[in-house]
Amino acid sequence: MLEQLTILAPGLLGASVARAARARGLARRIVLWSRRPETRLQLRAQDFCDAVVDTPEEAVREASLVVLAPPVDKIASLAQQIAPALPAGALVTDVGSVKGDIARLGHAALRADTHFVPAHPMAGSDKNGWEHSTATLFENRVCFITPLPESNAGAVEAVAAFWQDLGMQVVSTSPDTHDEIVAHISHLPQILASTLCQFLDTKDHAWRNYAGGGLRDTTRIAGSDPVIWRAIIEHNRDEILRALHQYQDELQAFASALANRDYLEIQARLERARSYRGGLRVP
Amino acid sequence: MLEQLTILAPGLLGASVARAARARGLARRIVLWSRRPETRLQLRAQDFCDAVVDTPEEAVREASLVVLAPPVDKIASLAQQIAPALPAGALVTDVGSVKGDIARLGHAALRADTHFVPAHPMAGSDKNGWEHSTATLFENRVCFITPLPESNAGAVEAVAAFWQDLGMQVVSTSPDTHDEIVAHISHLPQILASTLCQFLDTKDHAWRNYAGGGLRDTTRIAGSDPVIWRAIIEHNRDEILRALHQYQDELQAFASALANRDYLEIQARLERARSYRGGLRVP
Repeated sequence: MLEQLTILAPGLLGASVARAARARGLARRIVLWSRRPETRLQLRAQDFCDAVVDTPEEAVREASLVVLAPPVDKIASLAQQIAPALPAGALVTDVGSVKGDIARLGHAALRADTHFVPAHPMAGSDKNGWEHSTATLFENRVCFITPLPESNAGAVEAVAAFWQDLGMQVVSTSPDTHDEIVAHISHLPQILASTLCQFLDTKDHAWRNYAGGGLRDTTRIAGSDPVIWRAIIEHNRDEILRALHQYQDELQAFASALANRDYLEIQARLERARSYRGGLRVP
Repeated sequence: MLEQLTILAPGLLGASVARAARARGLARRIVLWSRRPETRLQLRAQDFCDAVVDTPEEAVREASLVVLAPPVDKIASLAQQIAPALPAGALVTDVGSVKGDIARLGHAALRADTHFVPAHPMAGSDKNGWEHSTATLFENRVCFITPLPESNAGAVEAVAAFWQDLGMQVVSTSPDTHDEIVAHISHLPQILASTLCQFLDTKDHAWRNYAGGGLRDTTRIAGSDPVIWRAIIEHNRDEILRALHQYQDELQAFASALANRDYLEIQARLERARSYRGGLRVP
């Protein structure tokens, strides 16, 4: 059991970490810090934390493990800010959706007697904010950890154990491989769904009243927070551009087959898609 | 109440019509015909029908209303086949996802004393086959009817009332407008989801084990039957090509904004998408 778990800037993911850690008895004491005073006030009324303090430094002073949970563009600077205040031996992890820069900057920011082990729990929702957090958000989902070659092995093991204790299946990979993977399985789907909605927005709005479950499911993630996603897309620009261009080539190949009335090719593509879809772990 | 409701080639939609009509007491007698002898045998054991006969002609001989429920490429020929056997005054409707050709060919196929009123209930699933049918599939969903200017007004009204009695909200539009609408809100999403899965199929298959709810929802419809969808795409080729090319332009505009690091433009597109998504009738 951790002596003190500190979660900085809890939104959906951070507050779900607090709830799950509380429910599973993973920490003796859970301390939060949130940037906005109103949010701190609201969080103080929640039973999934023991204290809500006014500064990040105060929150980490006695922390065994710190979870950095702000939007992806604020993680590295928050690591820099808390570095001097961390106690010796403290572990730091995060929940950022992009890992390359964060892994390198986070590692560089900390003192040698404290350890940053970047993480990305593959759980979430189109609903953001700590109000939507649940104790079960992470159950049976994958959590990437992306240590650097120079990361402390004991720290990596301890952070992996923490995410595992939250109910997750931990997958360890390099930060850059992580970013390539999520560009394909998370960021590209987001862009396709958002572009579909943005395209339909240029058409007769009555049409959306006619849609069935297909459009609803295909576009669910287009309801996600634009500010959070803008930061994710900005941080993973290069990998996303590569994945997007390749997807555009496949879409053009489909369009060409249709223009050429090559229905055998179209059916073959639909069949490969169905077979791939049938193998998704989350059905 | 209908004296006899006949459903030809029931799959998911056709059998759901039978179940819903039975549950709501819309027909005194429900008669089915299915092409495959094994399916006829299985259907005979179901309590949502009163008889399962061996030919389409036999099935329609005393029908008040006939629902044509085969895949979209078989509807017009089935209308031609049953035309001579229909009793005077019989109404015929269908469940096809594309309406232009079907509306014209179906109307032309029938005798002047019988009436074809094409329909497209916007309900379905990635699970096909009568085994997945339910009595509630149509509730609160939209059903297009696409009469021609020369359609009999009383027949149009009676068929609209039938779909309404199944729990649907009926929208009347021209066949060509229908085909433009569904190219955008149904066929394009299908192609984007299938192309995403087919693209990911070219990558490391382990990646799909890491996906969260986003990829799962975005690609659910990629699990749909490739043969059925090939026929739909073939029948709505021109409208789909138009919608697809416009979507490709929007996707390219997104990619260009990202290549140019124009993150304000990217955020603006995400915001328009979210706002559109928030207005979907089916949340």
